[in-house]
Amino acid sequence: MKLTCMQDDLKRGLAAVSHAVAGKSSTLPVLANVLLSTDEGRLKLTATNLEVGINRWIGAHVVQDGAVAVPAKLLADVVGGLPNDKVTLTLDVKTQTLRVECGRFVSNIKGVDADEFPSLPAVSARAPLVSLPAEVWREAIEQVAFAAASDESRPILTGVLVRTRDQQITLVAADGFRLAMRTIHVAEPVAHAVDCLIPARTLAELARIIGDIEAEVAMVYMPGGSHVLFHTENIEVVSRLIEGRFPDFERIIPQQYLTRTVLDSNELAKAVKLASFFAGASQNVVKLKIEPAGEFGPGRVILSANSAELGDNTSELDGSVTGEGGVIALNVKFLADAIAAVGSNQIAFEMQSSQSPAVFKPVGQDGYIHIVMPMSMR
Amino acid sequence: MKLTCMQDDLKRGLAAVSHAVAGKSSTLPVLANVLLSTDEGRLKLTATNLEVGINRWIGAHVVQDGAVAVPAKLLADVVGGLPNDKVTLTLDVKTQTLRVECGRFVSNIKGVDADEFPSLPAVSARAPLVSLPAEVWREAIEQVAFAAASDESRPILTGVLVRTRDQQITLVAADGFRLAMRTIHVAEPVAHAVDCLIPARTLAELARIIGDIEAEVAMVYMPGGSHVLFHTENIEVVSRLIEGRFPDFERIIPQQYLTRTVLDSNELAKAVKLASFFAGASQNVVKLKIEPAGEFGPGRVILSANSAELGDNTSELDGSVTGEGGVIALNVKFLADAIAAVGSNQIAFEMQSSQSPAVFKPVGQDGYIHIVMPMSMR
Repeated sequence: MKLTCMQDDLKRGLAAVSHAVAGKSSTLPVLANVLLSTDEGRLKLTATNLEVGINRWIGAHVVQDGAVAVPAKLLADVVGGLPNDKVTLTLDVKTQTLRVECGRFVSNIKGVDADEFPSLPAVSARAPLVSLPAEVWREAIEQVAFAAASDESRPILTGVLVRTRDQQITLVAADGFRLAMRTIHVAEPVAHAVDCLIPARTLAELARIIGDIEAEVAMVYMPGGSHVLFHTENIEVVSRLIEGRFPDFERIIPQQYLTRTVLDSNELAKAVKLASFFAGASQNVVKLKIEPAGEFGPGRVILSANSAELGDNTSELDGSVTGEGGVIALNVKFLADAIAAVGSNQIAFEMQSSQSPAVFKPVGQDGYIHIVMPMSMR
Repeated sequence: MKLTCMQDDLKRGLAAVSHAVAGKSSTLPVLANVLLSTDEGRLKLTATNLEVGINRWIGAHVVQDGAVAVPAKLLADVVGGLPNDKVTLTLDVKTQTLRVECGRFVSNIKGVDADEFPSLPAVSARAPLVSLPAEVWREAIEQVAFAAASDESRPILTGVLVRTRDQQITLVAADGFRLAMRTIHVAEPVAHAVDCLIPARTLAELARIIGDIEAEVAMVYMPGGSHVLFHTENIEVVSRLIEGRFPDFERIIPQQYLTRTVLDSNELAKAVKLASFFAGASQNVVKLKIEPAGEFGPGRVILSANSAELGDNTSELDGSVTGEGGVIALNVKFLADAIAAVGSNQIAFEMQSSQSPAVFKPVGQDGYIHIVMPMSMR
């Protein structure tokens, strides 16, 4: 293998695949490497931790074809330390050593035979199930994936359900205490109606990888397959799927409310942050009291947190309250997450009673709903 | 106690004293608090971990005098979460609870009696030994303090020696492997010729605290005292001193050299960084080969690092070489530290032999010298 490429291209390419490089504690040490291989006049970078695999192509002038796997972090460090200039990569096949040359900086990195690196699972068909702008995927994933369970005791809840029906794609995650759902409408009906359960961690990586891409990202999945593929021209992300059936989430979503309150999101976030300093020492409970407008003033929400050890905190916010009002206790962290995920300037908060789920939605846009289960009031 | 002050002033004040707040694992739990007390129409904030103590005054409208100690981190969190507006602090003396009020945000923080908070050691005389602009202290400390020992096996080497003689102030630190010395000339002769050994950690905190101050910072110390005081109008930093005699460092500083090389600091730093990725797996050894100008080109330095496990790295740099040249092995981390501390665009590197200390100096300015002991060549 011998080729030249630009330092900056190589640096970005290595950064993209770095998300799939396995840690040193992996059971398969070869996965701490990145696979470099020439591919029809381009350089292909590959990394995988067996849960997710990434291929990234960069432009290169290929003099001689070949492939080698080298320690991913070391190569990224060395390339990151070079000036943005032409870099020459030369493989000494006998010693499997990769020479990285840029001006008067020369490094020789010991690698391993490319054959020892596992190949990424092939995804059977290349016709995409659905294709969306990278920005749309990224936003939807960021609104949903964090609500998945992080512990492995209920594996199904560590995944994000991607459901396609007609002209609609739905992403849902839930951890038993909260549920986030984002719906995206597409112009053309999707190829298949599928339910596909993707590890939330993988999707979070995908969102990071496509963070600065402006192209369309296609999702390839055949019903019954064990893997899903996301790809653009220069990037492929392959993820394993989680087996099993996602809970019937539609049953959980309240179909009505008794009180709806519209609040300024920033102001609410500020009050929640203040409450969190006291709630942290008190099972994270924050209490919300909703008061409709009356003769003494406009509708308002009173947030309070109370810790026997530290003290207490109360914040009053003006809000537009429809309905009778009421009191509910929520986990302060879940509340902060909900506000951040809703993301709009104004947030709607719908409730039925202090024992029913609280519902948060953006004001002025459809397609997102976030549900938080109440805590018991003390 | 009752007073009002601006949120931003209180936030900055709490940030300044936070450097001296003891961790939760401290043997004296009261030190995790900050002491608030009214002081002649100002609010005084005090924190100490018994090694260093900080007083910081901020402007306030004092309605009623008083004092209380409250958890430092909680108060800083709460104040940081408030808008930049007028904050009212009211102490409920009976419950020792501090009410922090800003508009419709109200917090009650449980505190402890101010009498339980230890008072800072008094420094006997207030006539300063020497007074320098904050920026001069900060630069000198940053060039020297990091070279002090971080382990406590030789307590004297964990300190920075501050020596005053006539019109000269010298800061020196050494850890047995390297030595950093900064000399500052002052217009007026100093009040006393003293040697004063200050914990490097304390000085590093001082540099951080006065980082954005433009005033003069006075150092107060009486020969034989156990503490030293640094102060400006609004801030006082009191530190304990280390007892004992600092090694005779002047003996260590080479008085001559056989080869002097002048290099571009940025280019050298880049080459050292690249070498560090390989040297890290190989006892941190980097080899420098100095070659004088000859018929084949200008003088140059060849840096190399070699790891049996990872591979190797070589960088060539042009330099102006005076003398015969030679080879020396250095610790790559100490070399990187030295280049950063010298700080000038060009760096001079003076050596005698591969067994003698390497000397680094800025080019175009006096007053700083950094010495690194050589490693054995393999």
